[in-house]
Amino acid sequence: MNAAGLPFDDIRSLVASMPGPDLGAERAVRERDAQLTKPPGSLGRLEDIAVWLAAWQGKPKPEINRPTVCVFAGNHGVVAQGVSPYPQSVTRQMLENFAAGGAAINQICAAYDLGFKVFDLALDIPTGDITQEAALDEKSCVATMAFGMEAISGGIDLLGLGEMGIGNTTIAAAIYAGLYGGDPSRFVGRGTGLDDEGLKRKTAAVERALVIHAGHLADPLELLRRLGGREIAATAGAILAARLNRIPVVLDGYVITAAAAVLHALDPSALDHCVAGHVSAEGAHREVLERLGLKPVIDLGMRLGEGSGAALAMGVIKAAAACHTGMATFGQAGVSDREG
Amino acid sequence: MNAAGLPFDDIRSLVASMPGPDLGAERAVRERDAQLTKPPGSLGRLEDIAVWLAAWQGKPKPEINRPTVCVFAGNHGVVAQGVSPYPQSVTRQMLENFAAGGAAINQICAAYDLGFKVFDLALDIPTGDITQEAALDEKSCVATMAFGMEAISGGIDLLGLGEMGIGNTTIAAAIYAGLYGGDPSRFVGRGTGLDDEGLKRKTAAVERALVIHAGHLADPLELLRRLGGREIAATAGAILAARLNRIPVVLDGYVITAAAAVLHALDPSALDHCVAGHVSAEGAHREVLERLGLKPVIDLGMRLGEGSGAALAMGVIKAAAACHTGMATFGQAGVSDREG
Repeated sequence: MNAAGLPFDDIRSLVASMPGPDLGAERAVRERDAQLTKPPGSLGRLEDIAVWLAAWQGKPKPEINRPTVCVFAGNHGVVAQGVSPYPQSVTRQMLENFAAGGAAINQICAAYDLGFKVFDLALDIPTGDITQEAALDEKSCVATMAFGMEAISGGIDLLGLGEMGIGNTTIAAAIYAGLYGGDPSRFVGRGTGLDDEGLKRKTAAVERALVIHAGHLADPLELLRRLGGREIAATAGAILAARLNRIPVVLDGYVITAAAAVLHALDPSALDHCVAGHVSAEGAHREVLERLGLKPVIDLGMRLGEGSGAALAMGVIKAAAACHTGMATFGQAGVSDREG
Repeated sequence: MNAAGLPFDDIRSLVASMPGPDLGAERAVRERDAQLTKPPGSLGRLEDIAVWLAAWQGKPKPEINRPTVCVFAGNHGVVAQGVSPYPQSVTRQMLENFAAGGAAINQICAAYDLGFKVFDLALDIPTGDITQEAALDEKSCVATMAFGMEAISGGIDLLGLGEMGIGNTTIAAAIYAGLYGGDPSRFVGRGTGLDDEGLKRKTAAVERALVIHAGHLADPLELLRRLGGREIAATAGAILAARLNRIPVVLDGYVITAAAAVLHALDPSALDHCVAGHVSAEGAHREVLERLGLKPVIDLGMRLGEGSGAALAMGVIKAAAACHTGMATFGQAGVSDREG
C-alpha cells in the first residue's frame, strides 16, 4: 500500500541512508584510553560510553556541550477504554508542571545541567482509539515523525528522549505485542498504577487492538500508524534525525523504547547510535531491551517516563566523557605504568 | 587481649552508642512523597534514597549542600609478594595526580560538584607484610581509625569514601576470607590487571596470611589490625564517625567495602546509614554486598577505586534529593490526582 512517492517511502529512504560510526574516531579514543592514568578497563562501561560518543560524534575526543532532553507529549483515544487511573487532562496539566519547573524531569535536568524541551503534539486531538480504528493516517504519522525530527535543532550534541501521555503504556504494549507476538499480556504493566480490574481492561484493550489490526502489522511503519501514539511517531523521527546528524541518543523507558523498536524492525542497525538510559519497572522492558541488544546504563526500578531515566543516565554519560577528556596520561602525570 | 581501657574498647564503646535513623523525618518524607506529581513508587530507588537521606540527616527534607568524597591512601608490605603489576611508588604518584586534577575521581567530582579530600596515611611506612606479621599494632590501628574520623569535618552532609593503595585488593581479599571463611580464592581478583602468574601469587599470599593469623581472627577489630591496611582502618573510622554524626555515607567498591564488612561484623546495624555506591567487577564484590545487605546504586563493571563508584552514585543521589525537594505536589501544580 506504499507505492513510490508516498510518505512512508520517504522515511524508508532516510533509513536506507543512515551513516555508520566513525571508526577513526573510535580508534583514537581507544588509543588515548589505554594511556590514561588507570588500569586498562577499570572504568568499565564508562570507557565504552566514551568510545560510543566519539564514534557517533565523529570526533577523536567526545564532547558534551549541549546535552538536551526532549519530551514529546500526546493524547490517546484508547484512554476511553479505562486503561489509566489518571484522566486524560493530566497530560496537559503535566506539561504546565514542566513549564513551571515542578516535575521530576525538571529537577534531574537542573541537577546535571541538561537542556529541556517539550513538544506538544496536538494534545486536543487524541489519536484514534486503537481498539476500534487506526491511531493515525499515514500522512499524519509521517508529519508527526517529521515534527519529531526538529528535536535535534540548536546544536544538541547528546539527545535524551522522553514522553508524557496518559494511556501511552497501553500503546507501547500494543506495539511490542504487534512486533514480537506471543501472549500480549506480558507486555502489559500497571503503568501509572492500575489496580487489578484496570489491568484486565488494559490487557483486553491491547488484545482487541491486535485483533482489529491483524493482517496489517507486518510493515513496521504501518504498525506504527495503526497502533500509533503521536509521541511514539515523533520519537521515531527524532531518533532517525539524530542518526542522520551523528548525534548520540539516550533512550528513556518503556514508551520511548517502543519507537526505537519500530525503527529496529525496519533496520536492525538503526539503534547503533542509541544507548538505553535505564530499564523500566514497567511491563516487559527488560525483555524488550534484550531483543534490541541494548544494555541499560541505570537500573533503579523507575517507571515514571518524562525522560527521567534518560536524564539520570545522561548524568553518568557526562561523567564518562569528562573522565576521558579530562584525565591525565601516565606520561603527563609522571605515574609509572605497569611493570614487565 | 583487649582488657577494659585498651584502645579497641574505645572503638567498641562508640559502636555501642550508634544512633538509629530519625523515624519522624522518615515519615515526613514518605508523606510528602505521596503528594508529589508522579505516580506513587514511579521513581523507584530514588524515592528510597530520599527517605534514607532524610532519616539519617534527621531532617524532614533531605539536603545535600556539601557532598564530599574522601580518599584514604596507604601502602602495604604485602606488595613484596608480587601481588600487583604496579610498583608501590604508584600510590604516591597517584596522590600527586589527584592533587593536579588528572585522575578519574577528579573528573567525576567536577562533573557533579562534589568536594574532594585526600588523606595520606603514612605512605612512606608501609604496613607489615601480612604473610609474615600483623599489618598494624593495636595502637596504630586505633590511631588510624581516629585519623579517619576526621573525614567528616567541615560540615559534610553526604560522605563518599574511596581509597588508593597499590596492593590493597589483596588486603581486602584477606579480610573477606578471614570474615567469611570458605575457599579464599573466590575473593581474589586481578586487581589492577594481574596476569595468571600474578593471580597465583596473590592467592597464595592471601592463603598464607590466613594461616599465619589463624586463631586470631574471631574479633573483627583484631582481624582488622592483623590483615590491616591503613586506608581500611581509616575508612572504618570514617564510617563510624559519620554514623555518630548522622551523616549518610556512600561506599565505593571492593576495598572500601572491606572496612564496612569489619564494622558489620561488630554490629550488623553498623551500615544502616550507608549505601553501596556501586558493585565492583573485582573479586567477589557482589557476594560481599549481598552478605552485608547492601544493594548497589550503580552497576557498570567498574573496578578503579579512588572513590569513583561512590562519586558516580553521589550524582544519582543528588538527583534523588533534588526530585524530592524540588518537585511540586499535585495541589501546588494543579494536576489531577488519580480517579476513584
